[in-house]
Amino acid sequence: MRKGRLISLEGPDGAGKSTVLLALEERLRQDGIDFITTREPGGVEIGEAIREIILNPRHTAMDDKTELLLYVASRRQHLREKVLPALAAGKLVLMDRFIDSSVAYQGFGRGLLVSDIEWLNQFATDGLKPDLTLYLDIEVEEGLARIEKSKDRGADRLDQESVAWHRRVREGYLSILSKEPQRVVKIDASQTLEQVISACWARLQRECE
Amino acid sequence: MRKGRLISLEGPDGAGKSTVLLALEERLRQDGIDFITTREPGGVEIGEAIREIILNPRHTAMDDKTELLLYVASRRQHLREKVLPALAAGKLVLMDRFIDSSVAYQGFGRGLLVSDIEWLNQFATDGLKPDLTLYLDIEVEEGLARIEKSKDRGADRLDQESVAWHRRVREGYLSILSKEPQRVVKIDASQTLEQVISACWARLQRECE
Repeated sequence: MRKGRLISLEGPDGAGKSTVLLALEERLRQDGIDFITTREPGGVEIGEAIREIILNPRHTAMDDKTELLLYVASRRQHLREKVLPALAAGKLVLMDRFIDSSVAYQGFGRGLLVSDIEWLNQFATDGLKPDLTLYLDIEVEEGLARIEKSKDRGADRLDQESVAWHRRVREGYLSILSKEPQRVVKIDASQTLEQVISACWARLQRECE
Repeated sequence: MRKGRLISLEGPDGAGKSTVLLALEERLRQDGIDFITTREPGGVEIGEAIREIILNPRHTAMDDKTELLLYVASRRQHLREKVLPALAAGKLVLMDRFIDSSVAYQGFGRGLLVSDIEWLNQFATDGLKPDLTLYLDIEVEEGLARIEKSKDRGADRLDQESVAWHRRVREGYLSILSKEPQRVVKIDASQTLEQVISACWARLQRECE
């Protein structure tokens, strides 16, 4: 396999990312592939501290641009402390959300300019993009229904947003997909879990060859 | 007087900003001018939380770009919660450091691209610039000598930097001055305190007329 690959997993809430990620980890382990999975801020102390500010339910006065800058700051630190060292060591890095989440959530979701977000992503990552992005696509209603069913996560600020917002987020992902079809692969997440995992794994394996 | 003016006070460490600021406040009060003085993060809760992350001495792993993004996030929040409302209410806002500090310290000081910092400042402020910037200029050696003499401030991360760094910071300020002579006024801070205050006050009064 080629070494030091960066793979991101993206998708709106309720698409099943967490479950798929666990299954992919299992298979990577079985195949003896040297990998890490991570999600910003990923245990990086500075990033965790930033994340606490973003998710603090008391911080209702937070401006959208402030929030975006904080996400991007956390991204930068996570990349420097965790992702780049792993890539340099030749590992496969499987990321639960990355640059596209900012475009989908802060851009299409909150209405910040996509070109500004792209600039900030470029600044924070020095232009590093995933070699492959697996985008789990699901209808907004179905995704939200799934979230409702499995609701035991603490209610953070993001959960207070509307259905219309989730619709815009999905539009965001579909827009990225249409702009970067080489990097982003759409996986139909309305299929059975087995099918979704198989589809992701097939694509991931190709990347590892 | 014209209302809702934004004035920033800038300069390297040891130039006497704090003392000058106190004196200017005194005179503004005497003249019955409706004003606030503030300094990022300025008591804005989200900004204060961000500042704590930046100045935490444990955070030695902090990347320069992460630090810049955090400063800019704090700037954005401070502007939205404190500066813009004051300007909208017609007040004079006197700021202890603002956009130019990022250019001088993170740009010239730490070597980040000035064009990137300018982009970030523009993003965070929606292009708002001070109507007037009073830049207290002092030779690096003299400034540092003054700091040594009055050393009772806690040792934060910034104080661990070198003299060469302070020299670059001053170059940064002089570069801004040469690029924006209309907005930035250089005040010779090696004069007596009385002279410095008088020079600042004269310029400030003109702005208030």
